[in-house]
Amino acid sequence: MNPKIASFLDSSALATPCLVLDLDTVARNYAALRAALPAAKIYYAVKANPAVEILRLLVEKGACFDAASLPEIEACLAAGARAEAISYGNTVKKPAAIAAAHAHGVPLFAFDSIEELEKIARHAPGAKVYCRIAVNNVGADWPLSKKFGTSIARAKELMLTAPRLGLQPHGLSFHVGSQQTGTPAYEMAIAEVALLFTDLKNHGLELKMLNLGGGFPVRYQDDVPETGVFGHAIMNAMTEHFGNDLPDMLIEPGRAIVGNAGVVVSEVVLVCQRMEEDERRWVYLDIGRFGGLAETEGEAIRYRITAGRGASGPVVLAGPSCDGVDVMYEKTPYRLPLDLSAGERVLIHDTGAYVTSYASQSFNGFAPLAEHYI
Amino acid sequence: MNPKIASFLDSSALATPCLVLDLDTVARNYAALRAALPAAKIYYAVKANPAVEILRLLVEKGACFDAASLPEIEACLAAGARAEAISYGNTVKKPAAIAAAHAHGVPLFAFDSIEELEKIARHAPGAKVYCRIAVNNVGADWPLSKKFGTSIARAKELMLTAPRLGLQPHGLSFHVGSQQTGTPAYEMAIAEVALLFTDLKNHGLELKMLNLGGGFPVRYQDDVPETGVFGHAIMNAMTEHFGNDLPDMLIEPGRAIVGNAGVVVSEVVLVCQRMEEDERRWVYLDIGRFGGLAETEGEAIRYRITAGRGASGPVVLAGPSCDGVDVMYEKTPYRLPLDLSAGERVLIHDTGAYVTSYASQSFNGFAPLAEHYI
Repeated sequence: MNPKIASFLDSSALATPCLVLDLDTVARNYAALRAALPAAKIYYAVKANPAVEILRLLVEKGACFDAASLPEIEACLAAGARAEAISYGNTVKKPAAIAAAHAHGVPLFAFDSIEELEKIARHAPGAKVYCRIAVNNVGADWPLSKKFGTSIARAKELMLTAPRLGLQPHGLSFHVGSQQTGTPAYEMAIAEVALLFTDLKNHGLELKMLNLGGGFPVRYQDDVPETGVFGHAIMNAMTEHFGNDLPDMLIEPGRAIVGNAGVVVSEVVLVCQRMEEDERRWVYLDIGRFGGLAETEGEAIRYRITAGRGASGPVVLAGPSCDGVDVMYEKTPYRLPLDLSAGERVLIHDTGAYVTSYASQSFNGFAPLAEHYI
Repeated sequence: MNPKIASFLDSSALATPCLVLDLDTVARNYAALRAALPAAKIYYAVKANPAVEILRLLVEKGACFDAASLPEIEACLAAGARAEAISYGNTVKKPAAIAAAHAHGVPLFAFDSIEELEKIARHAPGAKVYCRIAVNNVGADWPLSKKFGTSIARAKELMLTAPRLGLQPHGLSFHVGSQQTGTPAYEMAIAEVALLFTDLKNHGLELKMLNLGGGFPVRYQDDVPETGVFGHAIMNAMTEHFGNDLPDMLIEPGRAIVGNAGVVVSEVVLVCQRMEEDERRWVYLDIGRFGGLAETEGEAIRYRITAGRGASGPVVLAGPSCDGVDVMYEKTPYRLPLDLSAGERVLIHDTGAYVTSYASQSFNGFAPLAEHYI
């Protein structure tokens, strides 16, 4: 474990559950992504972890921000971000939120339908817009594209319509799915959108920007390629398909910036084998699916989990609520020490992203986990 | 719709999303359950909706309370409940929470393992305990028993152990699963536990209480049997298996008391057909799986949803966040007006239970839904 977090844990009597997040790791991840893709501007996906400490640090480093909502935009501004550095990346926005973002000076808006484009035209006249394309999410542990994105053909129509609505048709975006563990999805998507860039150019429309989305993976249980591997593959594909005429490139990492910076500190509430017919050892923690570990749904994200020392055996991991679906891992083989008992600490690693903001406000009466940014 | 809620909606310019809940309906549901099962004490499952307005009303009506956590116990006490009227029904509790509940005077504790029984003995010496039995959840839309409950054989051992630990072996409990739409699960469970009552009596241990749990259903899309049907079936099964020697009976309704009392008022954020290959109309609301509608996971709970008038067509229903899994209904056939558009109100009915407390504290920057108790 990160020695800074280890020493914080040693020196503090922490009430659990809580998240401890190392800001130096965030800075290192940001620098690594810049080094891996120097040609791309980094728009941090605020939804991954909107803590003001993280936003302030990234403002200081010169990052831009991908916001999912008006409150996220306002959080960025409050942390010192310039409005010009913010993209309103949700393709589903309320008119009042579009108008407020526009009034704040946010220049860039995402869409994937004519209805949304018309809304933006009405409430953010003259704004720069980019169209999200649905692409193959092969290789992603948390796929996204079913709900978002349009076809190449539809995107072409929409981009050609934008100027007639008084908008600036700025670019295209795609998202290869969150926790994307391979490069082929990026390569295929770049090839596809490059054709549309050319097609639109032939129609007199020169797009300026390609938003490559996020999805860069964090190492949970399994090894994942280094950030550099993605950077290399992406730049190769960009050069292959765009030649020397590269558009502005944007990336929207969230998980890759904060995921491995945080550790959830949890306490064992109960260890038991409940009946003869079920020989499994059930371990109930003081955090579960509704306390922040929402991405354990379907056992999609398999966090690294550690506790104590000594010989280990298989366990089922469940949360503290009275809800039957509040079980994190039943099929994925997890092992914890055989002598684990109530009151002991369990660490859930690489939980800096998509944990704190997912937490229920008070399910079963439990307060959301505390947060420590060090 | 409930005329009181309808007139509140007409007279108020409500910011959405919000829950509007009619306290008169709560009172009526409570009275109906008392009438259906006059022999049983009602322990309201606080987790279904812990709003202070509901707790105060139920205190006034003489209800008892089933609490899942120390904060829920303290919420009941703050609302005027007597400690003696509270059962600590979670089989998974922290030692400090057990001790605090005991210090507050809470008399009754659930368990389903030797580890938990020993914890209760240590931190709530002399308390009354009841053992949860895992029973068949056939007929339930939201099954629970995988995570909780022990076998009859193990329960027997544990109940015989309780006095040796200085505890009062008070009774047994089971739970037939939430949104249980049939009576057979109750009948089978009663038959099973009655045998254990007899067996324990033959070992010199006379249990005093049977906790029949909750699970009584609410009418969502499909008809469900009236409360009276369950009351009748339960009393028949009790008399058949216990004769005249009925134990104290407890029930723990949550959904059946508050579910149909509430309506979520939502606004359409976007209606679109995103591409040629996907002919479905996508309707994005300002509330989704992470804004409170967590029980739409796997489309398990299928709420009744209405909007406007006029000819309707099929829709996919999704939430407002950038998360790909934030889709409520894709397989269940839902229809909404063909002319539905952004800004219009959509009502999600019978959402008084298991909505507000599930809501994420700030996922994608969205605040939890507002709550109005009228």
